[in-house]
Amino acid sequence: MMTSSLVNTYPLASYTFGTKEPKMEKDTSVADRLARMKVNYMKEGMRTSVEGILLVQEHNHPHILLLQIGNTFCKLPGGRLKPGENEIEGLKRKLTSKLGATVPALVPDWQIGECVAVWWRPNFETIMYPYCPPHITKPKECKKLYLVHLSEREYFAVPKNLKLLAVPLFELYDNVQRYGPVISTIPQQLSRFQFNMITK
Amino acid sequence: MMTSSLVNTYPLASYTFGTKEPKMEKDTSVADRLARMKVNYMKEGMRTSVEGILLVQEHNHPHILLLQIGNTFCKLPGGRLKPGENEIEGLKRKLTSKLGATVPALVPDWQIGECVAVWWRPNFETIMYPYCPPHITKPKECKKLYLVHLSEREYFAVPKNLKLLAVPLFELYDNVQRYGPVISTIPQQLSRFQFNMITK
Repeated sequence: MMTSSLVNTYPLASYTFGTKEPKMEKDTSVADRLARMKVNYMKEGMRTSVEGILLVQEHNHPHILLLQIGNTFCKLPGGRLKPGENEIEGLKRKLTSKLGATVPALVPDWQIGECVAVWWRPNFETIMYPYCPPHITKPKECKKLYLVHLSEREYFAVPKNLKLLAVPLFELYDNVQRYGPVISTIPQQLSRFQFNMITK
Repeated sequence: MMTSSLVNTYPLASYTFGTKEPKMEKDTSVADRLARMKVNYMKEGMRTSVEGILLVQEHNHPHILLLQIGNTFCKLPGGRLKPGENEIEGLKRKLTSKLGATVPALVPDWQIGECVAVWWRPNFETIMYPYCPPHITKPKECKKLYLVHLSEREYFAVPKNLKLLAVPLFELYDNVQRYGPVISTIPQQLSRFQFNMITK
């Protein structure tokens, strides 16, 4: 029997945010993205991607750090693994690429925690499911979301073309229109954790 | 670091279903239910309820056992804990009351697993959230969903006024209209588990 885990959550104000060179999106449209996915699938098989849920707190309520591209689209920091790459090591690499300082000494010592969700892409389409649908023997992508346990102090370097937002769980919940099916159900996936809100 | 857990899932056909005396709902309307909740809150404080997610498989896809009342309303087996009652023991008691045979030797030896979701009721209203909303210092109910690990063979006795359904995850997913916010997001909460589909 496992009891609910305790997660330390520190105030947003205890973190420092700087900037770094822009990290451009590889694709400029959804069609481009799906086409590139198809080419990569032919070469490397099923795509595995990993994303990190970084938690902070404000007003004693958990917030998640999201990268905003332009004025609307939000995403979790993370990305595609190299063929055969370990998930945990790959997520650390992606987090450093998205949010780590260019000075290695300032890059967080990423503590990757629990896998909280797994999503499957059955076809070269945008729709994903939280299970591999029956009769799908060759899914095109498997995306895993991991909790990232932040230390009390960290320095994040945000690419200049992106914004880093701390979005409260109550804003994400039931807001599929704004955040999509993956991010809008993070509150449900985190509900089993007990948050230890550290306020100092 | 925790890796995703493996859950054995047996075919629906490996279980036996009988009936037992009806178990009537304590309330005949939502208004009655909320009024009774209020009276109990005055006497005993926050209500804690526990519900079990019982998994079977058909066609290599996970299905969840739901109790159907009348023709539409579905619920997970479970119920309210007595004041001070242990969650795991209380859930076993409720599962036996809802699904156990009247002959004690035939009652499953319930194996209660992981807590997969926690929902909060801030007010004496039907709406619940997967977090305790900010500024709510006295929530009225906390509901916890646990995975129940079934053995290869079990006998379930279903109260005569209820039906027991095995509902596939793909039917629950994104179907808040039919199953409500708690049950319709179970697929997301189970996505981190790897199902070992046993077919014999």
